[in-house]
Amino acid sequence: MSLPVRRPLTNRQVKAVRGDRALDLPDELVTEEPLEVRVAWRGPSSPVAITMRTPGHDFELAVGFLLSEGIVGAASWVRSVVYCRPDGAEQDLNVVTVHLDRPIDLALRRAVPVSASCGVCGTATLDQLADRCGPLPEGPALPLRVLLGLPERLRREQPLFERSGGLHGAGIFDHRGEPVVVREDIGRHNAVDKIVGWAALDGGLPLRECVLVVSGRVSFEIVQKAAVAGIPVIVAVSAASSLAVETADRLGICLVGFARGDRANIYSHAERLDLTEPSAPLSVD
Amino acid sequence: MSLPVRRPLTNRQVKAVRGDRALDLPDELVTEEPLEVRVAWRGPSSPVAITMRTPGHDFELAVGFLLSEGIVGAASWVRSVVYCRPDGAEQDLNVVTVHLDRPIDLALRRAVPVSASCGVCGTATLDQLADRCGPLPEGPALPLRVLLGLPERLRREQPLFERSGGLHGAGIFDHRGEPVVVREDIGRHNAVDKIVGWAALDGGLPLRECVLVVSGRVSFEIVQKAAVAGIPVIVAVSAASSLAVETADRLGICLVGFARGDRANIYSHAERLDLTEPSAPLSVD
Repeated sequence: MSLPVRRPLTNRQVKAVRGDRALDLPDELVTEEPLEVRVAWRGPSSPVAITMRTPGHDFELAVGFLLSEGIVGAASWVRSVVYCRPDGAEQDLNVVTVHLDRPIDLALRRAVPVSASCGVCGTATLDQLADRCGPLPEGPALPLRVLLGLPERLRREQPLFERSGGLHGAGIFDHRGEPVVVREDIGRHNAVDKIVGWAALDGGLPLRECVLVVSGRVSFEIVQKAAVAGIPVIVAVSAASSLAVETADRLGICLVGFARGDRANIYSHAERLDLTEPSAPLSVD
Repeated sequence: MSLPVRRPLTNRQVKAVRGDRALDLPDELVTEEPLEVRVAWRGPSSPVAITMRTPGHDFELAVGFLLSEGIVGAASWVRSVVYCRPDGAEQDLNVVTVHLDRPIDLALRRAVPVSASCGVCGTATLDQLADRCGPLPEGPALPLRVLLGLPERLRREQPLFERSGGLHGAGIFDHRGEPVVVREDIGRHNAVDKIVGWAALDGGLPLRECVLVVSGRVSFEIVQKAAVAGIPVIVAVSAASSLAVETADRLGICLVGFARGDRANIYSHAERLDLTEPSAPLSVD
């Protein structure tokens, strides 16, 4: 059987800050899409989990997940794996059904870290999220010079990372680059949830005119959380996924990745930044 | 109200490889523990999700999670947050209940039904996992020299990471350091699931006498997946969590972190490695 192939990388134009220049360049983002895993035995299939993943080796992912989580007891229980919509009508490359040779106890499904409140139906989910968050108003432009200093500032506010090397950090900063609150956690998403929860319990939502800085990568989930909190600018030290950029674009959020030294990639809504002020007059790319 | 404090870092002795020496040193690991989030309105509480997290700011995490996921519509719905077991009998610092001023639709809970096998009761879960996986037999010792070369070898097998900077890699290697299979994904856990699934579909489980190499950090989940696949040695480029080390220790897995150049931290079951052979004769720490 020949399997359809999805591209694990997604092409995108970015505004690349390189020293005192800002260039429009082509870039490749890691593709992020939801995969729904279903199981079937002699009848209609049942959903087990949805995971955000990079397309490719989806059958392996589905089977490995079911085994790792103990939902399927042995590899020999697997009869076949197919891309298939629940209604069987047409192939959907984001839905995989694993056919088994015996029934399984679906109560064994554990609360695995399945991300996003669905997300399988891409555009519909983004529309739903946009409805829930409402429009983000225009605000004062964040000076590029301030932006480029934020990752280092976050790092300095992360005492535990220095000691363990194992903690993700997330922080809210104002437009002068001053930290408002910083949280750490082994989970990237948890660190951001702690910030959203801090603001909620403090009566501080929405977090307008704030910048969210994260120590790692930006996935759809991080952008979703920022959007719910009303945060208009996200700055990441590392890469952003295709779905993160698409979501930020759709929701009016300025998303910046690979912010290191005098370099950064602006993926969406650059109008929220003030690029006129030289970031680092001495540097030339 | 004064809140109980948990330590976000956990002390642990490690065997530290530094050039041609192996030293027993104290280390600090990032603490990883499950947090069960429950909601209540005028009656008994209901579970919403379980997340693996670093203790600290747990109330913020619970509230932020509920808001981010759209399960709770506004911060104003939250009346109070407490540490509490479902039966109300005693305080449990891994269970947080958020009391609301109105009912919510629990069908909005993400993922799947929360079951008892979710990891909240630490030791019981580890015992259950040990039962499921069976004992890992002794095997040939992995030469330290081979081990230290694995992260670089994984990197060379990750063409997509080079281009996007956004992909986690996981690979299975033999005891000569040769790659058997390498997978990439935006999710660390997905990359490992793809490997387990590859072996399952190929009839290759268990993966005895193999080494799992991962490009990032090691959490409980990664060790669990390796254990199910029968993999006796895990090597990570970055940090390992407290629960990852505890689990590896319990299940007989050799877990190595911060494997970079001629340095590495051996967290558990060093007897699976051959430390007699100098790793890098020229280096002195």
